[in-house]
Amino acid sequence: MKAVRFTEWKTKPSLREVPRPKPAPGEVLLKVAGAGACHSDVAVYEQFDETTAGPQLAPEYTLGHETAGWIEEVGEGVLGLTKGDAYLVYGPIGCGHCAACSRGQDTYCENAAKTPFLASGLGKDGGMAEYMTVPARNLVPLGDADPVAAAPLADAGLTPYHAIKLALHKLQGGGKTALVIGLGGLGQIAVQILKATTAATVIATDMKPEAMALAASRGAVTVEGGEGQADRIRELTEGRGVDAVFDFVGLTPTIQLAQKVVGKQGRITVVGIAGGPVSWDFYSNPYEAELTNTYWGTIEELHELAALYRAGHIEVDVTRFSLDDALLAYEHLENGTLLGRAVVVPHLDDATTASLQALADRMPAGV
Amino acid sequence: MKAVRFTEWKTKPSLREVPRPKPAPGEVLLKVAGAGACHSDVAVYEQFDETTAGPQLAPEYTLGHETAGWIEEVGEGVLGLTKGDAYLVYGPIGCGHCAACSRGQDTYCENAAKTPFLASGLGKDGGMAEYMTVPARNLVPLGDADPVAAAPLADAGLTPYHAIKLALHKLQGGGKTALVIGLGGLGQIAVQILKATTAATVIATDMKPEAMALAASRGAVTVEGGEGQADRIRELTEGRGVDAVFDFVGLTPTIQLAQKVVGKQGRITVVGIAGGPVSWDFYSNPYEAELTNTYWGTIEELHELAALYRAGHIEVDVTRFSLDDALLAYEHLENGTLLGRAVVVPHLDDATTASLQALADRMPAGV
Amino acid sequence: MKAVRFTEWKTKPSLREVPRPKPAPGEVLLKVAGAGACHSDVAVYEQFDETTAGPQLAPEYTLGHETAGWIEEVGEGVLGLTKGDAYLVYGPIGCGHCAACSRGQDTYCENAAKTPFLASGLGKDGGMAEYMTVPARNLVPLGDADPVAAAPLADAGLTPYHAIKLALHKLQGGGKTALVIGLGGLGQIAVQILKATTAATVIATDMKPEAMALAASRGAVTVEGGEGQADRIRELTEGRGVDAVFDFVGLTPTIQLAQKVVGKQGRITVVGIAGGPVSWDFYSNPYEAELTNTYWGTIEELHELAALYRAGHIEVDVTRFSLDDALLAYEHLENGTLLGRAVVVPHLDDATTASLQALADRMPAGV
Amino acid sequence: MKAVRFTEWKTKPSLREVPRPKPAPGEVLLKVAGAGACHSDVAVYEQFDETTAGPQLAPEYTLGHETAGWIEEVGEGVLGLTKGDAYLVYGPIGCGHCAACSRGQDTYCENAAKTPFLASGLGKDGGMAEYMTVPARNLVPLGDADPVAAAPLADAGLTPYHAIKLALHKLQGGGKTALVIGLGGLGQIAVQILKATTAATVIATDMKPEAMALAASRGAVTVEGGEGQADRIRELTEGRGVDAVFDFVGLTPTIQLAQKVVGKQGRITVVGIAGGPVSWDFYSNPYEAELTNTYWGTIEELHELAALYRAGHIEVDVTRFSLDDALLAYEHLENGTLLGRAVVVPHLDDATTASLQALADRMPAGV
Repeated sequence: MKAVRFTEWKTKPSLREVPRPKPAPGEVLLKVAGAGACHSDVAVYEQFDETTAGPQLAPEYTLGHETAGWIEEVGEGVLGLTKGDAYLVYGPIGCGHCAACSRGQDTYCENAAKTPFLASGLGKDGGMAEYMTVPARNLVPLGDADPVAAAPLADAGLTPYHAIKLALHKLQGGGKTALVIGLGGLGQIAVQILKATTAATVIATDMKPEAMALAASRGAVTVEGGEGQADRIRELTEGRGVDAVFDFVGLTPTIQLAQKVVGKQGRITVVGIAGGPVSWDFYSNPYEAELTNTYWGTIEELHELAALYRAGHIEVDVTRFSLDDALLAYEHLENGTLLGRAVVVPHLDDATTASLQALADRMPAGV
Repeated sequence: MKAVRFTEWKTKPSLREVPRPKPAPGEVLLKVAGAGACHSDVAVYEQFDETTAGPQLAPEYTLGHETAGWIEEVGEGVLGLTKGDAYLVYGPIGCGHCAACSRGQDTYCENAAKTPFLASGLGKDGGMAEYMTVPARNLVPLGDADPVAAAPLADAGLTPYHAIKLALHKLQGGGKTALVIGLGGLGQIAVQILKATTAATVIATDMKPEAMALAASRGAVTVEGGEGQADRIRELTEGRGVDAVFDFVGLTPTIQLAQKVVGKQGRITVVGIAGGPVSWDFYSNPYEAELTNTYWGTIEELHELAALYRAGHIEVDVTRFSLDDALLAYEHLENGTLLGRAVVVPHLDDATTASLQALADRMPAGV
Repeated sequence: MKAVRFTEWKTKPSLREVPRPKPAPGEVLLKVAGAGACHSDVAVYEQFDETTAGPQLAPEYTLGHETAGWIEEVGEGVLGLTKGDAYLVYGPIGCGHCAACSRGQDTYCENAAKTPFLASGLGKDGGMAEYMTVPARNLVPLGDADPVAAAPLADAGLTPYHAIKLALHKLQGGGKTALVIGLGGLGQIAVQILKATTAATVIATDMKPEAMALAASRGAVTVEGGEGQADRIRELTEGRGVDAVFDFVGLTPTIQLAQKVVGKQGRITVVGIAGGPVSWDFYSNPYEAELTNTYWGTIEELHELAALYRAGHIEVDVTRFSLDDALLAYEHLENGTLLGRAVVVPHLDDATTASLQALADRMPAGV
Repeated sequence: MKAVRFTEWKTKPSLREVPRPKPAPGEVLLKVAGAGACHSDVAVYEQFDETTAGPQLAPEYTLGHETAGWIEEVGEGVLGLTKGDAYLVYGPIGCGHCAACSRGQDTYCENAAKTPFLASGLGKDGGMAEYMTVPARNLVPLGDADPVAAAPLADAGLTPYHAIKLALHKLQGGGKTALVIGLGGLGQIAVQILKATTAATVIATDMKPEAMALAASRGAVTVEGGEGQADRIRELTEGRGVDAVFDFVGLTPTIQLAQKVVGKQGRITVVGIAGGPVSWDFYSNPYEAELTNTYWGTIEELHELAALYRAGHIEVDVTRFSLDDALLAYEHLENGTLLGRAVVVPHLDDATTASLQALADRMPAGV
């Protein structure tokens, strides 16, 4: 079968022929419906090497840590799963027996330093292939929902969902305000999760007008950047400040914006990994406002997010690519020429092929 | 000024002339915009007497514990309140210095047995009058929102809001289900609060088709009574059972319905005061499902609820009556001939007068 | 190796020779340090048959769902576990891929009806043997703590720990009161968990004076049964009522006692499986007091409980039996002739043998 | 009567004769049992002036925002309070009618900018006098407990209690660790609150050996400063990091220590007002570790803290001074020559007088 392989540090991935895997005991073989291309893939193959990344990320393996697909084959000892049913894949895989793994939060595995890989597609063969193997416990059922558009939920959805879940106590009931900074793939999903799960006024900001328009169409109150931005946001809160800020960029100026607008007893969650830094002191921090970061999410939260998606609360903005065009998807990602998430679709039906052709026709020649 | 006075046990209230009150230190004088008529008023003047009710409820006083109005005069020592601004009135008034009162939950005042009254309109002069006095701390700002339609929020809104707030941890995130039993004034508001503050599927049931239709128009999935009702509800939860049931009736059969459909780790809140009873045993109760009741709410919750109302999340179904027709409002209430809440409007503008006349024209002669 | 086998419905277990098992992929082989004998084992072999129990409980298998031991052999694919280290065994085993299993709460597995067994020792070979196999994820490290005395923590400890954890929000901070009804194995551990994890006044009651004395030595305020018991308990709460009641009996009179003494906004958790029933109605239930039951616990909670044990907060009252005397242990259990938990110790050291002999010398002839 | 008056900016307080106040409606007159001297008093009279402090703090008034006493006279409209009973005084006084005040959190009054004072003793006459007036809602009953030693609970106790209450979800159950940095008056009480209300290992650090010894006697594991301090703290957490750090100093190095030792999903609460600052960035912050500050507490929390004190969980280290020696108490405070809290006792009994004389005899001549 074909797979997008990361073969060497500081080297772009390549499309190669590899054997179709067999599910080990406790695993299933998944026929891949869609695999999202993520900025962290680019970081893995462009920025890191053996001196800057842990051995868990070392090549060679198939990329793709945002995957959904249909069960093709069920391994030994797996109960109650049926061929053909659609599932999302929870990517992280920890030691399996520490307290964090026991609660389905493999991201914080206490033995992470000793595990052989981080996640499906990050050290272990992932979803950018015709088939992949997945531990049964990492599967989340999709029912009748479209698994291609669902694929990005596994990371671009789960990351904001987790961040929002941890801040929900700040947003319960009436009279609350949330702010989303950065309206790319994750930010757009964040707006929708906030609108669905809370009654908060959702304020959103981004530098791209079309991203602002899309967020507005989903119920956000958009505020442009530039001078007076913090004041305009604070006005929308009747002067009290924002109860929960989610910064999907994480640069010094965006975190500083968050610090300016957060209210007493509010919460700033930095999701974007630009790093910051910012300065914090007792007197500039509104009383009891929390500053924190976040990372991916838990299996149970992916179940909950899938339920939101199945109930129609979340629309994922995706551009589909065939597996043969997977490297093109990464090219678009690197160039920032796509709105929404690039999803590689290894098994194309006719409708998808036609829509991909239409997309290709609209692309500028240089890409 | 005119006021609806409860003058004697087991006697219908009467419209009387009383002096306009003066605000004591710490109080304001409110010009009443609207005062809701509540079933518990009927219980007070029809069912109770000195042997069955505490001395706090003993006549004589003005009825009306669901009130909103405009500040007319500010008492000594009250800071920062302005004549003409619109406020909701939090009814309950406790001792003012126990732990419960300190957190704004006068409903659970630890010295309740020794207080002279329960609430504005329940022992102390309430809102069924042209003017009333209110302790400043019991005021909740309404901003530009209509204070007439807001009046029922003080009880018919706050009671479901409090019950839902205490159950919110069962309804957070995706894949949850709530059930509202009984779609009168409180149930209709409950449906709207649940839709606004959670992503839960809201199931609703009532015996009146028009109440079901109204709930459906507000986003509820309605389920008719009769055989198989519990099974049909459980199916909507994919067999897992309901996460939070709110029973606004509280009769044995409605609580039993709740017990049949609640899921593991779910919660049944009995709001309706019909009393039950039901039987509870270890084996018929799904693991960790909680059975509880509830009573009114806190001042802070009324602030939150007012914010939901001001943001347009809640529509209150009211029928307006002039103060002269207040006794007619109670008559309708006793006969069950109104959909939604009866609100007495002491200071009528022309538009309201016209709409009241139109209403009167449509009434059956016998009422 | 020797094992205590449950071979047929309505038949006492017997000590038999069976092959030593091999760990499957993802499992370890455990050399058993201690295996607790539990009343539910007696229910399994005395009360049930194929018409009253699910197929998951059908014989033949080795009993023992409260086990601790040392790793003897590590199966394929298990990372970072070392031979000789001591572990507790989390008993429940669900489907492994539903939302409940994903959070380590196999007790509420959504596919429980289709799983082949309930737990180690309940359908699957358990710990009453020289060796047993355990999925790696079901292991909880004991460090240097005594694994023999630890064995009962897996059920007699985890069950109260889970119940208390779910009620902790009622017991936080100062001025709270807890009540433990029934001071057998679980109740004694409950008293210690409450004293360690909260500042609540812990009231305890039982019919046996020696159980009361033991609870008192652990910091409980004991209250005898009989007339006026509810009043005496309520006095200890300064009239406010108990914030969290844990009923380890679950008979109608003990739940009724709980109902009489629980305060507003309190919580009654029925842990004991006697069944009840009780009557519940709106007016006799203090406002917002919750009535619920509970079942076992989660893997993560067993990690937390093991930490309490390792830190010296919990002393488990055990009587040790050799594997050859395992059936005698069940006899004592059935006759109620032991204080504390009977633990079968398959691999005896000299000190233990001596203390067992001393115990045997003190036993009445008839047992 | 005599009172310690703050009469002018940048001027030490002086002992003056003022009229005994009368309780207004809703207030009581308190005969002062004890009034704590606090570092923030020193800041008020030494550092601030009309350009750096709000008008609420402007002189002239009586100092003392940590007070306890006995009811001497009850104002109009106050129910159920009895002359002679002992009460703590909750200091902060907000507008009384915003959402924050309604929940008894006057510290975050939404109209703070418009109120005439911040608290009793901070803008309004406080407890450093023979008598003071207090709004009934600001009273917290002390029962039979010693009101002199209790006085510091109103600030030096309530501040750590509030900080800990907000972090309790990080410390619930077994296997958790807390760190207290700075073992002065607040830190010593923090250690005791943590030991009473959680099962966490409480680590404590300070530069004074006698403060460390006192904390150790109260159950803390003490860690000295200097090289390797962070490593030694982290080892005590088995490498996982601290779950909740409370920094009662708040200097850059102490907050940096907190940042080095906090674990994933942990929490750093900066209580000390030294200001910091520190740098925060995505990569140096353990995932989901929260950084926040805190300020005083709520009325309800003071009720809870008083219950802890009454139950014997908290010992307050105080040195007593007569009212005539109140200025001497501030001198000691400025010079750091006292361990524990200075409490001024306006109404001395013979025993106290004797102990004060003994204290005076031990004092160095220069003070």
